[in-house]
Amino acid sequence: MPHIGRRQGLTERLRIRAGTFAGPTAGLAAGNVQANLAILPAALAHDFLRFAQANPKPCPVLAVSEPGATALPTLAADLDIRTDVPRYRVWRHGELVEEPTDIRHVWRDDLVTFAIGCSFSFEEALVEHGIEVRHIARGCNVPMYRTSIPTVPAGAFFGPLVVSMRPFRPADAIRAIQITARYPSVHGAPVHIGLPEAIGIRDLGRPDYGDAVPVAADELPVFWACGVTPQSVIAQVKPEFCMTHAPGCMLITDLRNSSLAV
Amino acid sequence: MPHIGRRQGLTERLRIRAGTFAGPTAGLAAGNVQANLAILPAALAHDFLRFAQANPKPCPVLAVSEPGATALPTLAADLDIRTDVPRYRVWRHGELVEEPTDIRHVWRDDLVTFAIGCSFSFEEALVEHGIEVRHIARGCNVPMYRTSIPTVPAGAFFGPLVVSMRPFRPADAIRAIQITARYPSVHGAPVHIGLPEAIGIRDLGRPDYGDAVPVAADELPVFWACGVTPQSVIAQVKPEFCMTHAPGCMLITDLRNSSLAV
Repeated sequence: MPHIGRRQGLTERLRIRAGTFAGPTAGLAAGNVQANLAILPAALAHDFLRFAQANPKPCPVLAVSEPGATALPTLAADLDIRTDVPRYRVWRHGELVEEPTDIRHVWRDDLVTFAIGCSFSFEEALVEHGIEVRHIARGCNVPMYRTSIPTVPAGAFFGPLVVSMRPFRPADAIRAIQITARYPSVHGAPVHIGLPEAIGIRDLGRPDYGDAVPVAADELPVFWACGVTPQSVIAQVKPEFCMTHAPGCMLITDLRNSSLAV
Repeated sequence: MPHIGRRQGLTERLRIRAGTFAGPTAGLAAGNVQANLAILPAALAHDFLRFAQANPKPCPVLAVSEPGATALPTLAADLDIRTDVPRYRVWRHGELVEEPTDIRHVWRDDLVTFAIGCSFSFEEALVEHGIEVRHIARGCNVPMYRTSIPTVPAGAFFGPLVVSMRPFRPADAIRAIQITARYPSVHGAPVHIGLPEAIGIRDLGRPDYGDAVPVAADELPVFWACGVTPQSVIAQVKPEFCMTHAPGCMLITDLRNSSLAV
Protein backbone atom coordinates (compact mmCIF):
# COMPACT_ATOMS: atom_id res chain seq x y z
CA MET A 1 0.00 0.00 0.00
CA PRO A 2 1.44 3.37 -0.94
CA HIS A 3 2.46 5.65 1.89
CA ILE A 4 -0.14 8.33 1.07
CA GLY A 5 -2.98 5.80 1.22
CA ARG A 6 -1.85 4.38 4.54
CA ARG A 7 -1.37 7.79 6.14
CA GLN A 8 -4.72 9.15 4.92
CA GLY A 9 -6.63 5.98 5.76
CA LEU A 10 -5.23 5.67 9.25
CA THR A 11 -5.80 9.35 10.05
CA GLU A 12 -9.50 9.05 9.27
CA ARG A 13 -9.96 5.65 10.93
CA LEU A 14 -8.33 6.94 14.16
CA ARG A 15 -10.74 9.91 14.20
CA ILE A 16 -13.66 7.54 13.66
CA ARG A 17 -12.33 5.01 16.20
CA ALA A 18 -12.01 7.78 18.82
CA GLY A 19 -15.66 8.72 18.24
CA THR A 20 -14.89 12.25 17.03
CA PHE A 21 -16.41 11.59 13.59
CA ALA A 22 -19.66 9.70 12.94
CA GLY A 23 -20.94 11.02 9.61
CA PRO A 24 -20.92 10.18 5.90
CA THR A 25 -17.46 9.45 4.51
CA ALA A 26 -17.80 10.87 0.98
CA GLY A 27 -14.76 13.05 0.31
CA LEU A 28 -12.69 11.74 3.24
CA ALA A 29 -9.18 10.36 2.51
CA ALA A 30 -9.56 11.46 -1.11
CA GLY A 31 -8.25 8.84 -3.53
CA ASN A 32 -8.56 5.99 -1.01
CA VAL A 33 -10.89 3.06 -1.61
CA GLN A 34 -14.03 3.07 0.54
CA ALA A 35 -16.03 -0.13 1.04
CA ASN A 36 -19.53 -1.36 1.77
CA LEU A 37 -19.71 -3.64 4.79
CA ALA A 38 -21.66 -6.82 5.51
CA ILE A 39 -21.00 -8.82 8.67
CA LEU A 40 -22.69 -12.23 8.80
CA PRO A 41 -22.62 -15.30 11.08
CA ALA A 42 -20.22 -17.95 9.74
CA ALA A 43 -23.16 -20.28 9.07
CA LEU A 44 -24.38 -17.93 6.30
CA ALA A 45 -20.98 -16.71 5.13
CA HIS A 46 -20.23 -19.44 2.63
CA ASP A 47 -23.57 -19.06 0.82
CA PHE A 48 -23.15 -15.30 0.76
CA LEU A 49 -19.66 -15.62 -0.70
CA ARG A 50 -21.04 -18.02 -3.32
CA PHE A 51 -23.72 -15.43 -4.11
CA ALA A 52 -21.05 -12.76 -4.50
CA GLN A 53 -18.91 -15.01 -6.69
CA ALA A 54 -21.89 -15.61 -8.98
CA ASN A 55 -22.84 -11.92 -9.06
CA PRO A 56 -19.55 -10.01 -9.22
CA LYS A 57 -21.03 -6.86 -10.75
CA PRO A 58 -23.40 -5.98 -7.86
CA CYS A 59 -21.24 -7.80 -5.29
CA PRO A 60 -17.52 -7.19 -5.94
CA VAL A 61 -15.77 -8.57 -2.86
CA LEU A 62 -12.64 -6.64 -1.84
CA ALA A 63 -11.89 -8.72 1.25
CA VAL A 64 -13.34 -11.45 3.53
CA SER A 65 -12.18 -11.75 7.13
CA GLU A 66 -11.22 -14.88 9.04
CA PRO A 67 -14.22 -15.95 11.19
CA GLY A 68 -14.27 -13.80 14.33
CA ALA A 69 -11.31 -11.70 13.21
CA THR A 70 -11.59 -7.93 13.50
CA ALA A 71 -8.77 -7.20 11.04
CA LEU A 72 -8.80 -6.98 7.24
CA PRO A 73 -5.05 -6.90 6.61
CA THR A 74 -5.28 -6.71 2.81
CA LEU A 75 -7.28 -3.47 3.10
CA ALA A 76 -5.43 -1.67 5.89
CA ALA A 77 -2.52 -2.38 8.26
CA ASP A 78 -4.22 -1.00 11.36
CA LEU A 79 -7.95 -1.61 11.18
CA ASP A 80 -10.51 -2.76 13.74
CA ILE A 81 -13.77 -3.54 11.98
CA ARG A 82 -15.68 -3.08 15.30
CA THR A 83 -14.75 0.58 15.71
CA ASP A 84 -13.47 2.00 12.41
CA VAL A 85 -16.75 2.60 10.57
CA PRO A 86 -18.52 5.87 11.52
CA ARG A 87 -21.94 4.29 11.95
CA TYR A 88 -23.24 0.73 11.75
CA ARG A 89 -26.63 -0.89 11.41
CA VAL A 90 -27.43 -3.92 13.58
CA TRP A 91 -30.15 -6.23 12.24
CA ARG A 92 -31.95 -9.04 14.10
CA HIS A 93 -34.31 -11.28 12.11
CA GLY A 94 -34.46 -8.62 9.39
CA GLU A 95 -35.33 -5.78 11.79
CA LEU A 96 -33.06 -2.75 12.22
CA VAL A 97 -32.52 -2.69 15.99
CA GLU A 98 -29.65 -0.23 16.49
CA GLU A 99 -27.41 2.29 14.66
CA PRO A 100 -24.31 2.42 16.90
CA THR A 101 -20.95 4.04 16.18
CA ASP A 102 -19.14 1.01 17.64
CA ILE A 103 -20.10 -2.70 17.62
CA ARG A 104 -17.79 -4.09 20.32
CA HIS A 105 -20.82 -4.73 22.58
CA VAL A 106 -22.50 -7.02 20.03
CA TRP A 107 -19.40 -8.65 18.53
CA ARG A 108 -19.36 -12.46 18.27
CA ASP A 109 -16.59 -14.92 17.49
CA ASP A 110 -18.51 -16.49 14.61
CA LEU A 111 -18.83 -13.29 12.55
CA VAL A 112 -17.37 -13.00 9.07
CA THR A 113 -16.83 -9.54 7.57
CA PHE A 114 -17.27 -8.81 3.86
CA ALA A 115 -15.86 -5.58 2.39
CA ILE A 116 -17.59 -4.89 -0.93
CA GLY A 117 -16.49 -2.41 -3.60
CA CYS A 118 -18.31 0.93 -3.77
CA SER A 119 -19.07 3.26 -6.67
CA PHE A 120 -17.18 6.14 -4.98
CA SER A 121 -14.02 4.67 -6.55
CA PHE A 122 -15.20 4.75 -10.16
CA GLU A 123 -16.99 8.08 -9.70
CA GLU A 124 -13.66 9.58 -8.67
CA ALA A 125 -12.17 8.21 -11.91
CA LEU A 126 -15.03 9.76 -13.94
CA VAL A 127 -14.61 13.16 -12.26
CA GLU A 128 -10.83 13.01 -12.83
CA HIS A 129 -11.54 12.47 -16.53
CA GLY A 130 -13.62 15.66 -16.55
CA ILE A 131 -16.99 13.89 -16.82
CA GLU A 132 -19.75 15.46 -14.73
CA VAL A 133 -21.46 13.01 -12.37
CA ARG A 134 -24.94 14.46 -11.97
CA HIS A 135 -25.75 13.56 -8.34
CA ILE A 136 -22.31 14.73 -7.18
CA ALA A 137 -22.76 18.03 -9.06
CA ARG A 138 -26.18 18.43 -7.39
CA GLY A 139 -24.99 17.36 -3.96
CA CYS A 140 -27.58 14.60 -3.58
CA ASN A 141 -27.61 10.80 -3.38
CA VAL A 142 -27.37 8.67 -6.55
CA PRO A 143 -30.77 7.39 -7.80
CA MET A 144 -31.16 3.61 -7.45
CA TYR A 145 -33.79 1.29 -8.93
CA ARG A 146 -34.89 -2.32 -8.46
CA THR A 147 -34.81 -3.98 -11.89
CA SER A 148 -36.46 -6.97 -13.57
CA ILE A 149 -32.99 -8.54 -13.93
CA PRO A 150 -32.64 -11.49 -11.50
CA THR A 151 -29.38 -12.15 -9.69
CA VAL A 152 -27.94 -15.67 -9.80
CA PRO A 153 -29.24 -17.32 -6.58
CA ALA A 154 -26.94 -19.12 -4.11
CA GLY A 155 -28.28 -20.88 -1.02
CA ALA A 156 -30.77 -18.60 0.70
CA PHE A 157 -29.61 -15.52 -1.22
CA PHE A 158 -31.60 -14.36 -4.24
CA GLY A 159 -33.47 -11.33 -5.51
CA PRO A 160 -33.54 -8.66 -8.18
CA LEU A 161 -30.51 -6.66 -9.30
CA VAL A 162 -30.51 -3.09 -7.98
CA VAL A 163 -28.85 -0.49 -10.24
CA SER A 164 -27.63 3.07 -9.80
CA MET A 165 -28.18 5.59 -12.63
CA ARG A 166 -26.00 8.41 -13.95
CA PRO A 167 -27.06 10.40 -17.05
CA PHE A 168 -24.50 11.40 -19.71
CA ARG A 169 -24.40 12.75 -23.24
CA PRO A 170 -23.63 9.84 -25.61
CA ALA A 171 -19.91 10.54 -26.11
CA ASP A 172 -19.43 10.85 -22.33
CA ALA A 173 -21.48 7.67 -21.81
CA ILE A 174 -19.04 5.80 -24.07
CA ARG A 175 -16.06 7.23 -22.16
CA ALA A 176 -17.76 6.35 -18.86
CA ILE A 177 -18.18 2.75 -20.04
CA GLN A 178 -14.52 2.59 -21.03
CA ILE A 179 -13.34 4.12 -17.74
CA THR A 180 -15.52 2.08 -15.38
CA ALA A 181 -14.74 -1.15 -17.28
CA ARG A 182 -11.21 -0.73 -15.90
CA TYR A 183 -12.60 -1.08 -12.34
CA PRO A 184 -14.22 -4.54 -12.14
CA SER A 185 -13.71 -4.63 -8.35
CA VAL A 186 -16.00 -1.61 -7.89
CA HIS A 187 -18.96 -2.71 -10.10
CA GLY A 188 -17.06 -2.34 -13.41
CA ALA A 189 -18.80 -1.50 -16.69
CA PRO A 190 -22.51 -0.58 -16.68
CA VAL A 191 -25.16 -3.27 -17.06
CA HIS A 192 -27.59 -1.19 -19.15
CA ILE A 193 -27.89 2.02 -21.14
CA GLY A 194 -30.64 4.05 -22.69
CA LEU A 195 -33.82 1.97 -22.37
CA PRO A 196 -34.90 1.87 -18.69
CA GLU A 197 -38.22 0.13 -19.44
CA ALA A 198 -36.28 -2.83 -20.88
CA ILE A 199 -35.00 -3.62 -17.37
CA GLY A 200 -38.29 -2.97 -15.57
CA ILE A 201 -37.80 0.69 -14.63
CA ARG A 202 -41.06 2.56 -15.32
CA ASP A 203 -40.22 6.04 -14.09
CA LEU A 204 -36.69 7.44 -13.77
CA GLY A 205 -38.18 10.26 -11.69
CA ARG A 206 -39.16 7.83 -8.93
CA PRO A 207 -36.11 5.87 -7.78
CA ASP A 208 -36.55 3.04 -5.25
CA TYR A 209 -33.59 4.39 -3.23
CA GLY A 210 -31.69 7.70 -3.25
CA ASP A 211 -32.71 10.88 -5.04
CA ALA A 212 -34.03 11.53 -8.55
CA VAL A 213 -31.77 13.55 -10.86
CA PRO A 214 -32.77 15.24 -14.14
CA VAL A 215 -31.95 13.54 -17.47
CA ALA A 216 -31.73 16.03 -20.37
CA ALA A 217 -33.12 15.30 -23.85
CA ASP A 218 -29.61 14.96 -25.26
CA GLU A 219 -28.55 12.50 -22.54
CA LEU A 220 -28.85 8.76 -22.01
CA PRO A 221 -29.40 7.15 -18.58
CA VAL A 222 -26.55 4.71 -17.84
CA PHE A 223 -27.08 1.98 -15.24
CA TRP A 224 -24.47 0.29 -13.05
CA ALA A 225 -24.94 -2.73 -10.78
CA CYS A 226 -25.29 -1.37 -7.25
CA GLY A 227 -24.00 -2.36 -3.83
CA VAL A 228 -27.53 -2.05 -2.47
CA THR A 229 -28.17 -5.42 -4.18
CA PRO A 230 -26.29 -7.50 -1.55
CA GLN A 231 -27.89 -5.47 1.24
CA SER A 232 -31.36 -6.16 -0.16
CA VAL A 233 -30.75 -9.91 -0.60
CA ILE A 234 -29.44 -10.11 2.98
CA ALA A 235 -32.52 -8.24 4.20
CA GLN A 236 -34.72 -10.81 2.42
CA VAL A 237 -33.03 -13.72 4.22
CA LYS A 238 -33.69 -12.08 7.63
CA PRO A 239 -30.70 -13.70 9.37
CA GLU A 240 -31.04 -13.97 13.14
CA PHE A 241 -28.16 -11.50 13.38
CA CYS A 242 -26.13 -9.39 10.95
CA MET A 243 -24.58 -5.97 10.64
CA THR A 244 -23.93 -3.50 7.82
CA HIS A 245 -22.55 0.03 7.56
CA ALA A 246 -25.13 2.83 7.79
CA PRO A 247 -25.85 4.33 4.34
CA GLY A 248 -23.01 6.62 3.25
CA CYS A 249 -20.87 5.77 6.30
CA MET A 250 -18.32 3.54 4.59
CA LEU A 251 -15.19 1.69 5.65
CA ILE A 252 -12.14 3.78 4.68
CA THR A 253 -9.25 1.56 3.54
CA ASP A 254 -5.56 2.29 2.84
CA LEU A 255 -5.86 1.15 -0.81
CA ARG A 256 -5.75 3.76 -3.52
CA ASN A 257 -8.58 3.84 -6.09
CA SER A 258 -5.96 3.95 -8.86
CA SER A 259 -4.63 0.57 -7.70
CA LEU A 260 -7.98 -1.04 -8.61
CA ALA A 261 -7.68 -0.25 -12.33
CA VAL A 262 -6.99 -3.27 -14.55
CA MET B 1 4.32 -12.15 -37.24
CA PRO B 2 2.94 -15.53 -36.22
CA HIS B 3 3.41 -18.35 -38.72
CA ILE B 4 -0.33 -18.80 -39.34
CA GLY B 5 -0.77 -15.15 -40.27
CA ARG B 6 2.16 -15.16 -42.65
CA ARG B 7 1.08 -18.37 -44.38
CA GLN B 8 -2.55 -17.29 -44.75
CA GLY B 9 -1.69 -13.75 -45.84
CA LEU B 10 0.85 -14.84 -48.43
CA THR B 11 -1.45 -17.53 -49.87
CA GLU B 12 -4.17 -14.97 -50.56
CA ARG B 13 -1.80 -12.25 -51.81
CA LEU B 14 -0.20 -14.70 -54.28
CA ARG B 15 -3.64 -15.62 -55.65
CA ILE B 16 -4.48 -11.94 -55.99
CA ARG B 17 -1.05 -11.09 -57.45
CA ALA B 18 -1.47 -13.83 -60.08
CA GLY B 19 -4.82 -12.33 -61.10
CA THR B 20 -6.84 -15.40 -60.16
CA PHE B 21 -8.87 -13.50 -57.53
CA ALA B 22 -10.26 -9.99 -57.99
CA GLY B 23 -13.26 -9.77 -55.62
CA PRO B 24 -14.17 -8.61 -52.12
CA THR B 25 -11.84 -9.88 -49.40
CA ALA B 26 -14.31 -10.30 -46.50
CA GLY B 27 -13.73 -13.74 -44.98
CA LEU B 28 -10.36 -14.35 -46.68
CA ALA B 29 -7.34 -15.25 -44.48
CA ALA B 30 -9.68 -15.38 -41.44
CA GLY B 31 -8.13 -13.72 -38.40
CA ASN B 32 -5.67 -11.65 -40.43
CA VAL B 33 -5.79 -7.85 -40.42
CA GLN B 34 -7.17 -6.29 -43.61
CA ALA B 35 -6.46 -2.65 -44.43
CA ASN B 36 -7.91 0.30 -46.30
CA LEU B 37 -5.50 1.77 -48.83
CA ALA B 38 -4.68 5.36 -49.82
CA ILE B 39 -1.80 6.09 -52.20
CA LEU B 40 -0.89 9.78 -52.52
CA PRO B 41 1.87 11.82 -54.16
CA ALA B 42 4.62 12.69 -51.67
CA ALA B 43 3.68 16.39 -51.89
CA LEU B 44 0.36 15.63 -50.16
CA ALA B 45 1.56 12.82 -47.92
CA HIS B 46 2.75 14.89 -44.99
CA ASP B 47 -0.52 16.84 -44.69
CA PHE B 48 -2.51 13.62 -44.97
CA LEU B 49 -0.43 12.00 -42.24
CA ARG B 50 -0.97 15.09 -40.08
CA PHE B 51 -4.71 14.76 -40.75
CA ALA B 52 -4.57 11.10 -39.69
CA GLN B 53 -2.58 11.94 -36.57
CA ALA B 54 -5.20 14.51 -35.57
CA ASN B 55 -8.10 12.16 -36.35
CA PRO B 56 -7.01 8.72 -35.17
CA LYS B 57 -10.53 7.33 -34.76
CA PRO B 58 -11.60 7.63 -38.44
CA CYS B 59 -8.00 7.43 -39.70
CA PRO B 60 -6.00 4.82 -37.73
CA VAL B 61 -2.74 4.43 -39.67
CA LEU B 62 -1.32 0.89 -39.63
CA ALA B 63 1.67 1.66 -41.88
CA VAL B 64 3.15 4.35 -44.16
CA SER B 65 5.56 3.39 -46.96
CA GLU B 66 8.85 5.01 -47.91
CA PRO B 67 8.21 7.34 -50.91
CA GLY B 68 8.11 5.23 -54.07
CA ALA B 69 8.48 1.96 -52.14
CA THR B 70 6.14 -0.90 -53.03
CA ALA B 71 6.73 -2.79 -49.76
CA LEU B 72 5.11 -2.41 -46.34
CA PRO B 73 7.45 -4.62 -44.32
CA THR B 74 5.71 -4.09 -40.97
CA LEU B 75 2.47 -5.50 -42.44
CA ALA B 76 3.79 -8.44 -44.48
CA ALA B 77 7.18 -9.92 -45.40
CA ASP B 78 6.36 -10.46 -49.08
CA LEU B 79 4.03 -7.73 -50.31
CA ASP B 80 3.90 -5.66 -53.49
CA ILE B 81 1.42 -2.86 -53.07
CA ARG B 82 1.08 -2.57 -56.90
CA THR B 83 -0.31 -6.09 -57.39
CA ASP B 84 -1.53 -7.48 -54.07
CA VAL B 85 -4.90 -5.75 -53.76
CA PRO B 86 -7.73 -7.42 -55.72
CA ARG B 87 -9.03 -4.20 -57.25
CA TYR B 88 -7.88 -0.57 -57.12
CA ARG B 89 -9.44 2.76 -57.92
CA VAL B 90 -7.35 5.32 -59.83
CA TRP B 91 -8.39 8.96 -59.35
CA ARG B 92 -7.25 11.99 -61.38
CA HIS B 93 -8.33 15.45 -60.20
CA GLY B 94 -11.09 13.82 -58.13
CA GLU B 95 -12.47 11.75 -61.04
CA LEU B 96 -12.52 7.96 -60.92
CA VAL B 97 -10.72 7.02 -64.16
CA GLU B 98 -9.99 3.31 -63.82
CA GLU B 99 -10.62 0.24 -61.60
CA PRO B 100 -7.68 -2.02 -62.43
CA THR B 101 -6.54 -5.21 -60.68
CA ASP B 102 -2.89 -4.08 -60.91
CA ILE B 103 -1.37 -0.58 -60.79
CA ARG B 104 2.14 -1.24 -62.15
CA HIS B 105 1.27 0.74 -65.33
CA VAL B 106 0.47 3.92 -63.35
CA TRP B 107 3.05 3.59 -60.57
CA ARG B 108 5.27 6.61 -59.81
CA ASP B 109 8.37 7.03 -57.69
CA ASP B 110 6.83 9.83 -55.62
CA LEU B 111 3.89 7.79 -54.29
CA VAL B 112 3.38 7.19 -50.57
CA THR B 113 1.13 4.34 -49.46
CA PHE B 114 -1.05 4.54 -46.34
CA ALA B 115 -2.56 1.37 -44.88
CA ILE B 116 -5.47 2.32 -42.62
CA GLY B 117 -7.23 0.08 -40.10
CA CYS B 118 -10.56 -1.44 -41.09
CA SER B 119 -13.63 -2.42 -39.07
CA PHE B 120 -13.35 -6.06 -40.23
CA SER B 121 -10.87 -6.57 -37.37
CA PHE B 122 -13.16 -5.40 -34.57
CA GLU B 123 -16.20 -7.05 -36.14
CA GLU B 124 -14.36 -10.35 -35.96
CA ALA B 125 -13.77 -9.71 -32.25
CA LEU B 126 -17.49 -8.95 -31.72
CA VAL B 127 -18.57 -12.13 -33.54
CA GLU B 128 -16.05 -14.19 -31.52
CA HIS B 129 -17.68 -12.80 -28.35
CA GLY B 130 -21.05 -14.09 -29.59
CA ILE B 131 -22.45 -10.65 -30.42
CA GLU B 132 -24.50 -10.53 -33.62
CA VAL B 133 -23.32 -7.91 -36.10
CA ARG B 134 -26.47 -7.05 -38.04
CA HIS B 135 -25.10 -6.35 -41.53
CA ILE B 136 -22.94 -9.50 -41.40
CA ALA B 137 -25.94 -11.57 -40.32
CA ARG B 138 -27.94 -10.08 -43.22
CA GLY B 139 -25.10 -10.41 -45.74
CA CYS B 140 -25.14 -6.75 -46.72
CA ASN B 141 -22.81 -3.76 -46.40
CA VAL B 142 -22.61 -1.77 -43.15
CA PRO B 143 -24.72 1.44 -43.17
CA MET B 144 -22.60 4.61 -43.12
CA TYR B 145 -23.64 8.23 -42.49
CA ARG B 146 -22.07 11.68 -42.88
CA THR B 147 -22.35 13.42 -39.50
CA SER B 148 -22.38 16.99 -38.22
CA ILE B 149 -19.14 16.23 -36.31
CA PRO B 150 -16.20 18.00 -38.01
CA THR B 151 -12.81 16.33 -38.31
CA VAL B 152 -9.72 18.27 -37.16
CA PRO B 153 -8.39 19.89 -40.40
CA ALA B 154 -4.75 19.59 -41.50
CA GLY B 155 -3.46 21.33 -44.61
CA ALA B 156 -5.90 20.77 -47.46
CA PHE B 157 -7.67 17.93 -45.67
CA PHE B 158 -10.92 18.63 -43.83
CA GLY B 159 -14.55 17.54 -43.81
CA PRO B 160 -17.23 15.83 -41.74
CA LEU B 161 -16.74 12.61 -39.82
CA VAL B 162 -18.36 9.60 -41.49
CA VAL B 163 -19.62 6.89 -39.14
CA SER B 164 -20.73 3.28 -39.53
CA MET B 165 -23.70 2.01 -37.51
CA ARG B 166 -24.39 -1.34 -35.86
CA PRO B 167 -27.52 -1.85 -33.71
CA PHE B 168 -27.36 -3.80 -30.44
CA ARG B 169 -29.47 -4.43 -27.37
CA PRO B 170 -28.13 -2.26 -24.50
CA ALA B 171 -26.11 -4.96 -22.69
CA ASP B 172 -24.50 -6.01 -25.98
CA ALA B 173 -23.84 -2.35 -26.83
CA ILE B 174 -21.89 -2.00 -23.56
CA ARG B 175 -19.91 -5.17 -24.32
CA ALA B 176 -19.28 -3.93 -27.88
CA ILE B 177 -17.89 -0.66 -26.49
CA GLN B 178 -15.61 -2.58 -24.12
CA ILE B 179 -14.41 -4.96 -26.86
CA THR B 180 -13.80 -2.38 -29.58
CA ALA B 181 -12.07 -0.01 -27.13
CA ARG B 182 -9.31 -2.63 -27.05
CA TYR B 183 -8.69 -2.03 -30.78
CA PRO B 184 -7.67 1.64 -31.15
CA SER B 185 -5.79 0.87 -34.38
CA VAL B 186 -9.02 -0.21 -36.08
CA HIS B 187 -11.31 2.73 -35.09
CA GLY B 188 -11.48 1.78 -31.39
CA ALA B 189 -14.48 2.60 -29.20
CA PRO B 190 -17.62 4.09 -30.77
CA VAL B 191 -18.03 7.84 -31.10
CA HIS B 192 -21.78 7.92 -30.44
CA ILE B 193 -24.69 5.85 -29.17
CA GLY B 194 -28.44 6.09 -29.12
CA LEU B 195 -29.30 9.58 -30.36
CA PRO B 196 -28.58 9.80 -34.13
CA GLU B 197 -30.15 13.26 -34.51
CA ALA B 198 -27.58 14.64 -32.03
CA ILE B 199 -24.84 14.01 -34.64
CA GLY B 200 -26.84 15.20 -37.65
CA ILE B 201 -28.32 11.89 -38.80
CA ARG B 202 -31.98 12.46 -39.70
CA ASP B 203 -33.00 9.02 -40.97
CA LEU B 204 -31.22 5.78 -40.06
CA GLY B 205 -33.15 4.14 -42.91
CA ARG B 206 -31.32 6.26 -45.49
CA PRO B 207 -27.54 5.83 -45.06
CA ASP B 208 -25.18 7.96 -47.17
CA TYR B 209 -23.13 4.85 -48.04
CA GLY B 210 -23.78 1.11 -47.71
CA ASP B 211 -27.09 -0.55 -46.92
CA ALA B 212 -29.79 0.23 -44.33
CA VAL B 213 -30.30 -2.40 -41.61
CA PRO B 214 -33.28 -2.68 -39.23
CA VAL B 215 -32.98 -1.36 -35.66
CA ALA B 216 -35.46 -3.05 -33.27
CA ALA B 217 -37.36 -1.16 -30.56
CA ASP B 218 -35.23 -2.80 -27.85
CA GLU B 219 -31.96 -1.86 -29.57
CA LEU B 220 -29.73 1.21 -29.68
CA PRO B 221 -27.81 2.32 -32.79
CA VAL B 222 -24.08 2.45 -32.03
CA PHE B 223 -21.79 4.57 -34.24
CA TRP B 224 -18.10 4.04 -34.97
CA ALA B 225 -15.76 6.41 -36.81
CA CYS B 226 -15.43 5.03 -40.34
CA GLY B 227 -12.59 4.56 -42.83
CA VAL B 228 -14.74 6.23 -45.47
CA THR B 229 -13.85 9.52 -43.73
CA PRO B 230 -10.25 9.67 -45.12
CA GLN B 231 -11.52 8.63 -48.56
CA SER B 232 -14.08 11.42 -48.54
CA VAL B 233 -11.58 14.08 -47.41
CA ILE B 234 -9.16 12.96 -50.13
CA ALA B 235 -11.97 13.14 -52.70
CA GLN B 236 -12.67 16.71 -51.60
CA VAL B 237 -9.05 17.77 -52.19
CA LYS B 238 -9.16 16.36 -55.75
CA PRO B 239 -5.41 15.61 -55.96
CA GLU B 240 -4.03 15.49 -59.52
CA PHE B 241 -3.41 11.78 -58.92
CA CYS B 242 -4.19 9.26 -56.20
CA MET B 243 -5.26 5.69 -55.73
CA THR B 244 -7.37 3.72 -53.26
CA HIS B 245 -8.62 0.16 -52.95
CA ALA B 246 -12.02 -0.55 -54.53
CA PRO B 247 -14.75 -0.82 -51.85
CA GLY B 248 -14.55 -4.17 -50.06
CA CYS B 249 -11.35 -5.19 -51.89
CA MET B 250 -8.88 -4.69 -49.06
CA LEU B 251 -5.17 -5.24 -48.53
CA ILE B 252 -4.65 -8.58 -46.72
CA THR B 253 -1.75 -8.38 -44.26
CA ASP B 254 0.14 -11.05 -42.28
CA LEU B 255 -0.80 -9.45 -38.94
CA ARG B 256 -3.35 -11.19 -36.75
CA ASN B 257 -6.38 -9.21 -35.53
CA SER B 258 -5.68 -10.47 -32.01
CA SER B 259 -2.29 -8.73 -32.10
CA LEU B 260 -4.02 -5.34 -32.38
CA ALA B 261 -5.73 -5.63 -28.98
CA VAL B 262 -4.30 -3.35 -26.32
